[in-house]
Amino acid sequence: MPPHEPPAEAAPGREGSPSPAPGPSGAHSEVLISTTFGPRDFLERWAEALRAHGLVVQAWPDAVGDLSRVEFAVTFDPPPGLLARCPNLKAIHSMGAGVSPGMLGGDVCPAHLPLLRVVDPLMAQRMATFVLWAVINCQRKCDEYLAAQQAQSWDQGKAVESYRQVDNGELRVGVMGAGHLGSAAIDLLLKCGYSVNAWTRTPRALPGAACFHGRPQLHRFAERCDVVVCLVPLTPETSGILDAAFFACLPRGAILVSLSRGQHLVEPDLLAALDSGHLAGAVLDVFRQEPLPPDSPLWRHPKVRVFPHASCTPDMPRAVAQMVRLRELLLAGKPLPPEVVVDRQRGY
Amino acid sequence: MPPHEPPAEAAPGREGSPSPAPGPSGAHSEVLISTTFGPRDFLERWAEALRAHGLVVQAWPDAVGDLSRVEFAVTFDPPPGLLARCPNLKAIHSMGAGVSPGMLGGDVCPAHLPLLRVVDPLMAQRMATFVLWAVINCQRKCDEYLAAQQAQSWDQGKAVESYRQVDNGELRVGVMGAGHLGSAAIDLLLKCGYSVNAWTRTPRALPGAACFHGRPQLHRFAERCDVVVCLVPLTPETSGILDAAFFACLPRGAILVSLSRGQHLVEPDLLAALDSGHLAGAVLDVFRQEPLPPDSPLWRHPKVRVFPHASCTPDMPRAVAQMVRLRELLLAGKPLPPEVVVDRQRGY
Repeated sequence: MPPHEPPAEAAPGREGSPSPAPGPSGAHSEVLISTTFGPRDFLERWAEALRAHGLVVQAWPDAVGDLSRVEFAVTFDPPPGLLARCPNLKAIHSMGAGVSPGMLGGDVCPAHLPLLRVVDPLMAQRMATFVLWAVINCQRKCDEYLAAQQAQSWDQGKAVESYRQVDNGELRVGVMGAGHLGSAAIDLLLKCGYSVNAWTRTPRALPGAACFHGRPQLHRFAERCDVVVCLVPLTPETSGILDAAFFACLPRGAILVSLSRGQHLVEPDLLAALDSGHLAGAVLDVFRQEPLPPDSPLWRHPKVRVFPHASCTPDMPRAVAQMVRLRELLLAGKPLPPEVVVDRQRGY
Repeated sequence: MPPHEPPAEAAPGREGSPSPAPGPSGAHSEVLISTTFGPRDFLERWAEALRAHGLVVQAWPDAVGDLSRVEFAVTFDPPPGLLARCPNLKAIHSMGAGVSPGMLGGDVCPAHLPLLRVVDPLMAQRMATFVLWAVINCQRKCDEYLAAQQAQSWDQGKAVESYRQVDNGELRVGVMGAGHLGSAAIDLLLKCGYSVNAWTRTPRALPGAACFHGRPQLHRFAERCDVVVCLVPLTPETSGILDAAFFACLPRGAILVSLSRGQHLVEPDLLAALDSGHLAGAVLDVFRQEPLPPDSPLWRHPKVRVFPHASCTPDMPRAVAQMVRLRELLLAGKPLPPEVVVDRQRGY
């Protein structure tokens, strides 16, 4: 389903319409929900959940009212310019565990406002669980067995020969990034007995994992990855990090799992590494352009699994409950938990 | 690949041929390897691994020599009658973690001989890892996303709506059987945060899991399973246990994962439960007839994943090393570890 195109302007008949329950600032402040990401019913369900907490919600594009009444924005990839038209905006809540690169720009999310993200331990578990699926799906040749099923072939020769089962401790899984999501993935992989290598921006000690950091150690890390899972935040340093030079350092037959942001991956370099046989496969959940364009060769590549940015979706009721708590802290002038505030310089 | 048909008789020219290195009983005893399961190169690789330990190996069907020199048999589903023709046989080693029902009959595996199985902690890890894959593959709708990919559909509506992500703690995974393999699966599922119910033949206490036992509690167990994983040994009590009455007790939308023996499953009952929409899917690794016959509707059923008995294959070098150790114990007249000896009455 394509994302909504931002309308040239919100419906003029509604923009000046009276809103219910005016009151002192904060007491009846309104929430503006908007996104150019995901289908329309996605946004409507978020709006309903916010209203269930007693909040007055304006929902872009069809139910935008008096923007001067908006004190909180709930969004992922809002239409450019919309939030700048809210003079009393106090904070911007991302609907995700992170923000998109576009949201870091002041034209989309005015730079003086706190940009907040969803922090939910169970969201990290969701991501870690998906990482585990991707690892086992490759390790145990589940896609190859599916192809055998589709050919009605009892392919046990492969089961006992070229598909020799690799024990968990033999499989070297590399995880790039050890933030909220990456460290949950590392923990779960270690619990399952995998050999884990971790690569982070700055030095880290992660018990049970072999740790590498910074660009100078990236290629030493890559050499030790039978499966590499990208969970680093997108920053100028990490943009395009999954490129031909990186792939060349991976062992022949390695698998790429890219779950963080599409801009990490140089797609033509991946296709070349797959087609040369150097890489054996890829599981991709994020893309430079989302939805993935119909003419992308990734859709039909036999070694690529495409997911529609679904590795780790926030639990909407829990995310909304967090937004409500943060709103109350802000209205009471209390400090916010630091982990929810996006550092626009770092990008996460 | 079809299994070998047992020949009417081993090639007569070879059966009387002299074997190298005759000697006192045991010192130069020979090993007979045979199986009607799996492709021929599978058997040849086992024979090579046994020879690498210095053993003299007769390999059915092409390299059978003087059967009176055979003191140990290595087999899975041997051809009926073959082992009875070895007058000096001391023990029968199964090539697997268990035995097939056919191997319990005295006509196939003479009843006075110890029947030994492979016990390998890493084999239990292989099974537990496959169980985890099957659970996550269902929980996270990975097959549905694959269908979306094949239709080039960015199916994010499903990602955020009907495909709402179920947290691990919300998903009730039922494991039938808590032996060597089942208890490893239960441990790993608990480490990953799933809600685990266990059903066993006799009462068990499994920390972290809700425990049920015996036929009278089977249906109470089934009612609590969003995914049910069958890992019980095959016995007269458990044959056909996965039938219409059992499926009717599972919650609507449940998933069956059958990994132990094909005789547990009443296949027409499964097809009826899938086609009525009561069950949402099945992952099957074992079948009443293996290889699965070409005309089986399971091959092409859209809700069924078929694997060729591949959830947990023994690590052949480790299995052979165990056989060599057990052979030495037997030749020295020492007792065997009890966990390797199959109880023919219980069937495992």
